[in-house]
Amino acid sequence: MKHRPTTATILTHNMCHNLEQVKKLSNHLPTWAVIKANAYGHTITAALEGFAKSEGIALLEIENAQLARSLGWEKKILMLEGAFFQSDYADYDELQCDFVIHQKEQMIWLSDYMKSLSSHKADMLVRRCEVWLKLNSGMNRLGFMPTEYLAAFDLLKNLGFRVHHLTHFANADVAGDADLSLTSCPKPRVQDQWKLFKETIQDLEGLISAANSAALLHHPYTHGDFTRPGIMLYGAAASGRFAEIASYGLKPTMRLQSKVIAIQNLQAGEHVGYGGRFIADQLSQIAVIACGYADGYPRHAPNGTPVWICANERMPAGRMAPIAGRVSMDMITIDITGLPVQVGDDVELWGEHLPIDDVASAAHTVGYELMCALSPRVKISITKE
Amino acid sequence: MKHRPTTATILTHNMCHNLEQVKKLSNHLPTWAVIKANAYGHTITAALEGFAKSEGIALLEIENAQLARSLGWEKKILMLEGAFFQSDYADYDELQCDFVIHQKEQMIWLSDYMKSLSSHKADMLVRRCEVWLKLNSGMNRLGFMPTEYLAAFDLLKNLGFRVHHLTHFANADVAGDADLSLTSCPKPRVQDQWKLFKETIQDLEGLISAANSAALLHHPYTHGDFTRPGIMLYGAAASGRFAEIASYGLKPTMRLQSKVIAIQNLQAGEHVGYGGRFIADQLSQIAVIACGYADGYPRHAPNGTPVWICANERMPAGRMAPIAGRVSMDMITIDITGLPVQVGDDVELWGEHLPIDDVASAAHTVGYELMCALSPRVKISITKE
Repeated sequence: MKHRPTTATILTHNMCHNLEQVKKLSNHLPTWAVIKANAYGHTITAALEGFAKSEGIALLEIENAQLARSLGWEKKILMLEGAFFQSDYADYDELQCDFVIHQKEQMIWLSDYMKSLSSHKADMLVRRCEVWLKLNSGMNRLGFMPTEYLAAFDLLKNLGFRVHHLTHFANADVAGDADLSLTSCPKPRVQDQWKLFKETIQDLEGLISAANSAALLHHPYTHGDFTRPGIMLYGAAASGRFAEIASYGLKPTMRLQSKVIAIQNLQAGEHVGYGGRFIADQLSQIAVIACGYADGYPRHAPNGTPVWICANERMPAGRMAPIAGRVSMDMITIDITGLPVQVGDDVELWGEHLPIDDVASAAHTVGYELMCALSPRVKISITKE
Repeated sequence: MKHRPTTATILTHNMCHNLEQVKKLSNHLPTWAVIKANAYGHTITAALEGFAKSEGIALLEIENAQLARSLGWEKKILMLEGAFFQSDYADYDELQCDFVIHQKEQMIWLSDYMKSLSSHKADMLVRRCEVWLKLNSGMNRLGFMPTEYLAAFDLLKNLGFRVHHLTHFANADVAGDADLSLTSCPKPRVQDQWKLFKETIQDLEGLISAANSAALLHHPYTHGDFTRPGIMLYGAAASGRFAEIASYGLKPTMRLQSKVIAIQNLQAGEHVGYGGRFIADQLSQIAVIACGYADGYPRHAPNGTPVWICANERMPAGRMAPIAGRVSMDMITIDITGLPVQVGDDVELWGEHLPIDDVASAAHTVGYELMCALSPRVKISITKE
C-alpha cells in the first residue's frame, strides 16, 4: 500500500553540519540543541542522530524526553518550560532532566514534591537534576521579575539544587550593534535585556544560558556558558529571511517533495482554483501538485511563491515555477507554461534547491512554522546522506 | 506521565447533528461525508462515529480507507483524487472503494491493471468499485476538459464500470444568486460551471455529485444525487466567515483547550513577545497560555484575536480576552488586565464559546486550515456528549 506521493526527507548529515557551525561560531561552548515540537517537525529520532555531539537537548514535551531516553540519549536534557503539573517532577526525577523554573507555582510544586520524598531520595534528586532559573528580562513572556529573582534563587539553593541562569531575547534577529542603536529597533533590545540579566545575577553562582540562534549569530557577548540554538540547527533563519544566514554555511535539513498529479491547459482569461485568484494572461499550462495546507504547506502562499521542479530527462537542470492560484487543502497549482512537465514529475516544495525561508517569506511567516506544521500524513524518511 | 495541558476534544454528537442538518437542507439525499486529512484533524475514529449515518465517506489517503474498513465501516468509500500510482487500484479492489478518475494516466493505469486480472477478477472489480469521472468545469484544478469527457466515459463503460459524474466548484461560497449576477463575483461562477457540467453529461447515464458544503447551502440546484459536504460537517464556514453559516444551526465539533502557565505584570510602555508587537498602554497583566503555532494555533493571529477564559469560581460567566503579542511556537500571550485570572486557569482557543471561524478570520485564513493544522503533540479525546 503506497502513501500519497507527499514525502519529507530529513537530512541528518546537514543537522550534524549545522551543529558544527554553531560550535565554530560559539568557540565550542556546550550547546542545548533545541528539539521541542518534535524537533521542529524533524522527529526525535533524527534529532538524536543529527545532534549526537550536542552536550544536551532541550524540549518541553515530557513524552519526548522519555522517548529520547528510551532511544538511548544519556546526556543532558533540559525541560525548557519546566513543570506544567506538580506530577511532572517525579518524571524529571526518573528521567534525570534539568528543568526551568519560571514562576512561583512551579517552586511550590517542587517544594511539595521534595517534602514527599525521603531525605535519601531528595538528595538523589538534587544530584540528578539541575535547575535553570528564568529571568524575565523584558520579553514579558516567561520568567521572574528582577525584583523576585534573588528570593527564588535562594529558595532553590536552600532546597539543595544547583541553580543556573536563563533568559530569552525578544529581538535577537535584529542583526548587529549598528541596528541596535536605531530608534526604530523593536523593544526590548538585546543589549538592554542582557544588561538587566547580568546585573540581576551578578553576585550569584551558576552557569548562564541566554543565546538562541539569532543571539548566537548576531550578539556574541550573550553566548554565556551554554548556547541554546534552535532554528539555525535546521538551516533556517530566525527572521525568516534566508539572506540573514546565507553567509554562515548552514544547510537545509528537511526536503518536502511531491509529484505532479495533473496538468491543465488554459485559454487566456481562464481562472485557477478557489476564488479564481490566478488568471491566465495567455495560453497556459498549470500543473497540479499533491501537497496542500493539510500537509503543512502554507495556505497564505501567494501567486508567485516558488516551487522547484526536479531535474529529469526533459529538464536536466530542474526549474523553478511559480504558484498560480490559492493553495488548497490537498493541492497546489503552479504555472508551467512552456515547460515540458509531465504527470508523475517530482517537485521540491522546500529543501536543497529551494530554501524553506524563501517559501516562508513569500507566505509572510518563518521557516519554524512550516517545519512544525508538517502533517502526520506526510511520510517522513530519515537519511544520513 | 502527563502531557502538556494543550488538548483537543472532538464532539461527535455535534458531528452527528451537523450531518442531520445537511440531510435536512438537501432533502435527505445520500451524502459523501468528506473525511480527508484525518477528518479535517478530527480523527477517522471520531468521523466514523459522528458520520455513522452517512451513506458514504470520501477521502484521499488509502491508509485511512484501510483504517476505516478495519474499524468496521462497511458502507461506501470514495477515493476523491483517485489513484496516485497504478498499484492503488489493487488496494481499491481489496478495500472495495469507489474512485475518481480525473486524468488520462489514471485510465491507462486502470486499463493495465484490469488486463493483469483474470476475467473473473475483473468482473468482481467492476461490481465492487464504481467510477466517478471528474469534469473540469472551470476550476482548472482536477478533471477532464468537456471535449475529452465523453471519450473517457465511453472507455470506462467499455471496461465494464458503472460510471458517475463529479465536478467541483471554485466559488460556491459566494452566497446566493443575487451575488452571482455581480460583475465583481469571482470567476468561474457556480451557475456557469453547473451549466457546462449539465451540458457535458446530458446524454450520459450515471449519478451526479457536485455540491460541496458551500454549494449545498447556497446553490440548491446543484445538489444532484449525492452531496459532498466537508467543512459544514465540522461546524465551520467555507468562506471562513461564521456569519455565513450562523443561521443554519451548525455546531462546533472541535474544542481546543489549554491552561494559563504564567502571568506577567507590565508597566505602561513595556513590550510583549517577539518583535515587541504588543505595547502596554497602562499597568497591565498578561497571561501566558501553553499553546502556540507548533500546536496548530495560527501564527498570523494579530493582537486582539479572541481567546476564551473558561468559567471558574472567580469568573462564573467566563470571559473573552484578546491576544497581546506575537504567537510563539509554544505559547500565546493574552491581555487579562483587571481580570482575576490565575495560573492553572483553563482557556478555550476555539470551541463552543468561540467559533473557530472567528479565530480563522482574525488570522486571515479559514477554519479548515486550523482544524487540519492541529499538531500530533495536542492530545485528542473523543466525546459523545
